[in-house]
Amino acid sequence: MIGTVTTRADAQALDAADPLAAFRDRFTGDGPDGSWDDGPDRRLYLDGNSLGRLPRATPAAVARVVEQEWGAGLVGSWSQWVSQAGRVGDALAAGVLGARPGEVLVSDSTSIDLFKLLVAGCDARPGRDVVVCCADDFPTDRYVVAGVAAQKGLTVREVAADIDAGLDLDVLAAALDGRVAVVVLSLVAYRSGALVDLAAVTALAREHGALVLWDLSHAAGSVEVDLDAGGADLAVGCTYKHLNGGPGAPAFLYVRRELQADLRQPVWGWFGQRDQFAMGPEYDPAPGVDRFAVGTPPVLATAAVEVGVGITAEAGIAAVAAKGRALTDLLVALADERLPALQLASPRDAARRGAHVSFAHPQAWQLTQALVDRGVVPDFRTPDRVRFGPAPLYTRFVDVFDAVERLADVLATGAHEGYPTRRSRVT
Amino acid sequence: MIGTVTTRADAQALDAADPLAAFRDRFTGDGPDGSWDDGPDRRLYLDGNSLGRLPRATPAAVARVVEQEWGAGLVGSWSQWVSQAGRVGDALAAGVLGARPGEVLVSDSTSIDLFKLLVAGCDARPGRDVVVCCADDFPTDRYVVAGVAAQKGLTVREVAADIDAGLDLDVLAAALDGRVAVVVLSLVAYRSGALVDLAAVTALAREHGALVLWDLSHAAGSVEVDLDAGGADLAVGCTYKHLNGGPGAPAFLYVRRELQADLRQPVWGWFGQRDQFAMGPEYDPAPGVDRFAVGTPPVLATAAVEVGVGITAEAGIAAVAAKGRALTDLLVALADERLPALQLASPRDAARRGAHVSFAHPQAWQLTQALVDRGVVPDFRTPDRVRFGPAPLYTRFVDVFDAVERLADVLATGAHEGYPTRRSRVT
Repeated sequence: MIGTVTTRADAQALDAADPLAAFRDRFTGDGPDGSWDDGPDRRLYLDGNSLGRLPRATPAAVARVVEQEWGAGLVGSWSQWVSQAGRVGDALAAGVLGARPGEVLVSDSTSIDLFKLLVAGCDARPGRDVVVCCADDFPTDRYVVAGVAAQKGLTVREVAADIDAGLDLDVLAAALDGRVAVVVLSLVAYRSGALVDLAAVTALAREHGALVLWDLSHAAGSVEVDLDAGGADLAVGCTYKHLNGGPGAPAFLYVRRELQADLRQPVWGWFGQRDQFAMGPEYDPAPGVDRFAVGTPPVLATAAVEVGVGITAEAGIAAVAAKGRALTDLLVALADERLPALQLASPRDAARRGAHVSFAHPQAWQLTQALVDRGVVPDFRTPDRVRFGPAPLYTRFVDVFDAVERLADVLATGAHEGYPTRRSRVT
Repeated sequence: MIGTVTTRADAQALDAADPLAAFRDRFTGDGPDGSWDDGPDRRLYLDGNSLGRLPRATPAAVARVVEQEWGAGLVGSWSQWVSQAGRVGDALAAGVLGARPGEVLVSDSTSIDLFKLLVAGCDARPGRDVVVCCADDFPTDRYVVAGVAAQKGLTVREVAADIDAGLDLDVLAAALDGRVAVVVLSLVAYRSGALVDLAAVTALAREHGALVLWDLSHAAGSVEVDLDAGGADLAVGCTYKHLNGGPGAPAFLYVRRELQADLRQPVWGWFGQRDQFAMGPEYDPAPGVDRFAVGTPPVLATAAVEVGVGITAEAGIAAVAAKGRALTDLLVALADERLPALQLASPRDAARRGAHVSFAHPQAWQLTQALVDRGVVPDFRTPDRVRFGPAPLYTRFVDVFDAVERLADVLATGAHEGYPTRRSRVT
């Protein structure tokens, strides 16, 4: 059906039939008082995979925690706060990640959680001295791997991935052997959106006795993830992208229940301690997923995460993922037809993508700036990509249609030519 | 003057002369709409050293970041957010910590920051295999030290401290030798409030070639800290106690400017990277204090920290610390006179204390519960301590007076006897 969209009315018809259409009103728009501006000059925000929009319920939820729980409740509110990280984790587990209760914890940042679980995973595979990661993975993943390897005297084996098509399982298979302790891999590639098969990679690694530590940052809330059925052992991810938890929102970590007792993470903080308030002399990690906690949890920020996770869970991740495929299919089809200067830099098959797609263009940096000035918000990604993340919960098909129109206009008029070329510092 | 306070009117006279009296109205009270309830049954919150009160300006500051910067600005707000952690760090440096610009960063949790700087410090002292910590220090400090030592094959040398009087410098000196890489120590002890001499400890450690990693959690915002003049090399601390940043607020870290280029922390995240958005292949730590950052910073939570830090800076840390000494002096003097069943478990000399004091009582747990039920909020601390933290910015002398009255009444009537004894889990 997507392939037949050639007019704005066709896109509007898709919106009329969209089962998730009502969820747009759960988010703050760009009109007065957060209403949705549906006018022709409205902002077309296609960067929800970088920073998700603000849910309408979030300001009140945060204000309640600030004013009631902190302001009025003071230390008495700790009786609620001590269970917050696990409660939101369980909501994520059930509604978004296909995990069981007691397997997911909201904590720290994605980078910190990666570090914690990578060290824990390597320590759980004594005698093995290799960590496998993908040469094209997100910088923080590669840097954390390099840092852990440097400190533990491990070897990093980087596997090459096609920066458009993603990682080939045969390439990964060739990198696996009895020396590999842990494979670190993003389920959805940050640039191309390429999606790998969680169950297949997990099974492949397991054949060689290795653990996989998944980075779900671009996957959580955009594709169906089934950690439990897929046999996943370890995962981390971000909540400020498709989960709409807010800038720098706390991350999540997942550890398969059966592994928890055997794993110890390296940062021995008091929130990971059994019987924490006894303040005993020796560190004795808590049973269960709490042992992967470290310091006092970020209560205000986690309140925002809870709202975002709740919306995705209510919409249903299957429906969200289906709409993500449809929106990106539409973008690809329209680009094929109207944007010949752009080259698709993502898998063409929607089943092999997350909810974002990239296009290559020699002047991608200038194009991105020209689009932002025309109210279309994509992301530039090195080396020459424009990346679009039409978040399913609040992006309409007509928004994608209009964004392509504006992009076609920029290209037709050469408006981007007037923008400066990229300098090394991008903010 | 404090020693002569024997009536409520005397305490009221101290309040009338208090140069910080107006700062109370910067905080939310327990009356309607956050006003201050000054009635006889009001809550007497003496736990500001555990969780500081809500500044009146915080809800609006957080709402502005949520609604304007996130909701309306979306990714465009990153141009402000990238400098937030350093901007609030610089405010802390100048107003609270006696540090220079570019030496303090708001980041992660105290436990995580301790871990980062402890590993960095140990790595900066190659060939040394001992970490010194205090056997009576806060649990997370001891646990983090134990975890780092276990992973790096170091030996922990615990020095004993008097749990009331704090650490004796001669005891510390006896534990120092050429094997010591880092000394981890709280400037203000979490239980007794005992304050050690920052410059003296730093100089002592330096004689032996060791670094001191200070935990300023109970010191920041309660005593005058002069990291620069004191020669401090490394420090971390908490912002949710006397800095009133909110539950689980991000912590801060300090690294002396001259040391920064030689130190590398172990969690190599993308926010510690030079030219971060180039997303280059190799981790290359940023120059300056930014290299101690890790993941995407917690923007919403840091907005609350900024408000809290600003109030302390405006009040002036010298005035805040002076009032802290006066409030705790009053508490000690009144306890001497009216609470013979309690034994002071903190230094008697205010110059050797932070802004909290503890008392020992065999039924400390039951006493704490009885007080909470009578609107006085202290903290129980093992093994048999009741700890009072009358935060100088919003606690009046008359509040301390009235708290002692209620405590005297509990002891006189034996009301605490009816409370259950402590079970291992305290929440």
